[in-house]
Amino acid sequence: MKALVYGGPGKKTWQDVPDPEIVHATDAIVRVETTTICGTDLHILKGDVPAVQVGRILGHEGVGTITAVGSAVSSLAVGDRVIISCIKSCGHCANCKLGLYSHCLGDEGQSGIGWVFGHLIDGTQAEFVRVPYAENSLHRIPPGVSDEEAVMLSDILPTGFEIGVQYGRVKPGDVVAVIGAGPVGLAAIATAGLCGAGTIIAIDTDENRLEQARLFGATDAVVSGSHDWKQQVLALTDGAGVDVAIEAVGIPETFTMAVDVVRPGGNVANVGVHGKPVELHLEDLWIQNINISMGLVNTNSTPMLLKLVARGKIPAGALTTHRFGFDQVLEAYDTFSRAAETKALKVVISRSRMA
Amino acid sequence: MKALVYGGPGKKTWQDVPDPEIVHATDAIVRVETTTICGTDLHILKGDVPAVQVGRILGHEGVGTITAVGSAVSSLAVGDRVIISCIKSCGHCANCKLGLYSHCLGDEGQSGIGWVFGHLIDGTQAEFVRVPYAENSLHRIPPGVSDEEAVMLSDILPTGFEIGVQYGRVKPGDVVAVIGAGPVGLAAIATAGLCGAGTIIAIDTDENRLEQARLFGATDAVVSGSHDWKQQVLALTDGAGVDVAIEAVGIPETFTMAVDVVRPGGNVANVGVHGKPVELHLEDLWIQNINISMGLVNTNSTPMLLKLVARGKIPAGALTTHRFGFDQVLEAYDTFSRAAETKALKVVISRSRMA
Repeated sequence: MKALVYGGPGKKTWQDVPDPEIVHATDAIVRVETTTICGTDLHILKGDVPAVQVGRILGHEGVGTITAVGSAVSSLAVGDRVIISCIKSCGHCANCKLGLYSHCLGDEGQSGIGWVFGHLIDGTQAEFVRVPYAENSLHRIPPGVSDEEAVMLSDILPTGFEIGVQYGRVKPGDVVAVIGAGPVGLAAIATAGLCGAGTIIAIDTDENRLEQARLFGATDAVVSGSHDWKQQVLALTDGAGVDVAIEAVGIPETFTMAVDVVRPGGNVANVGVHGKPVELHLEDLWIQNINISMGLVNTNSTPMLLKLVARGKIPAGALTTHRFGFDQVLEAYDTFSRAAETKALKVVISRSRMA
Repeated sequence: MKALVYGGPGKKTWQDVPDPEIVHATDAIVRVETTTICGTDLHILKGDVPAVQVGRILGHEGVGTITAVGSAVSSLAVGDRVIISCIKSCGHCANCKLGLYSHCLGDEGQSGIGWVFGHLIDGTQAEFVRVPYAENSLHRIPPGVSDEEAVMLSDILPTGFEIGVQYGRVKPGDVVAVIGAGPVGLAAIATAGLCGAGTIIAIDTDENRLEQARLFGATDAVVSGSHDWKQQVLALTDGAGVDVAIEAVGIPETFTMAVDVVRPGGNVANVGVHGKPVELHLEDLWIQNINISMGLVNTNSTPMLLKLVARGKIPAGALTTHRFGFDQVLEAYDTFSRAAETKALKVVISRSRMA
């Protein structure tokens, strides 16, 4: 089959590789119909994630059809159309029992991390992929949900909801600021209302993204390049700050922005993938009764979010801005990596568009 | 009356000052019988809390008898024996309605902070003190609870419980590490069992304090000066880290220790008063699903903790190591500020011991 193979920092090729096979009785093989690119893939290509070895097939998001199942798989069958969660979870280790699938201790790939696709084992930017612990890592797609909608449930919708909205403890009436209106920020914006957010402020440098954010549910938008961005945000609160600040960029500056606009007693939910440490001003913050959360998605909310997508309650389809065939994957990467210029949100790569 | 007056960094005097008077209808005047010194008072004397002005009477912990009440006070009366909470709270502002008394917006002292005694208004290291919002800031003491026990409820017991144990989300069976076995750390150790902690590890440089910690409920003790302190802590877990790490010192090194020993999915509860920023390694932590909390005590738990002290369930009396009269307050400060040498935990200063 063909797959996108990591060749070390800055290098990737769409090349022939052996087809994946069932290794464990709990595996399934999925024929990938649709995949997409995540900001994390760009981090890997920059060399920021040294655990990714040369030769690894990239990608952790995908939708497809099961072509084979291991002998222990009984609740899924060949022919099922499924979402591939970015997180593999055995479902029975101590962490899985706590719902902490992100740190599944099942020994596939490397123990102690649930995100393995395109990281510690081969991923989804390929014609076929082997999915470990298939029964807990795949989600059957109900009729009426398109591939483009479904693939947003592999990672970004549950990430925005769980790590942004739920970890941020959004509650009815809250003023929520989302810093960074990229795909994951938009996913947080689109799901903050599920927990009753009253005001959802999108903050970004890019006015185009802020316009998009309103379509996903942002009630207000603030250009973070403006000198008075903080005053603009505070003016949308009672003056004390936002109840929840969701960081969805992953650089020290935006993390500090989140800490700067949160009210005493509020929550900072870090969603961004960071490559550097940040300075935390505990000398000011110890007295502020704020809470700072962070983490990798557990995907516990995927079945719930899938129901809402099926009922048209979350505009998952609107996240796709560009479409490519599998054989255009390098072009898709190029478009996604120049998102400010191309106005890309999610670039969707489909088998059906292959030349 | 006599009171301990702040004279700028490094300076304090026990001197004559005017007696306090009722200013607002919601005030009470309390004749202080017992007070004590907090690590925060030492921070103030170092000049770390610039909001404290020269001439301020220090102290935010105390027990005494009401000698006067304002016209709006109906649930307390002259002669009542009371605990003075370190936090004043109006009980009806937006933050108080959320239980966030630490950020009471009542306009006494300075808006937006509930800790005012010995900070923004005159405090409790005095023969008398004016207590704003008396009905929400004083707690009547039941028979059988001594002054020495009761004064631990002004600050350290609720701080250890609320900011350490509750913010740290201690739950049944948890392995809890408490870094710093000073008075507040011991308060966290003594109350962690209320939320079901299974293992309580005291960590300190001082072996004497670690011995004390066992008397307050620590199941294990680790000397943090030892080269393998972290391995010793991990050996008391399943290897992945502690469920909750409570920081009760207030320096960057101990904060980093807390972050280093917490498991994926665990909680770091910062209780320490910090004077410097810390480096937060988000490049490693973003994926760890940890939660970092911090804050000033709300004292919501004081009535509950007072009941448990009255029933002998919390060894509040054992926190006192040294006793002084009011006229020995400078000696008390000297003893407390050399705690490593004097083995002081709480130094209690009583009117009854005055020469």
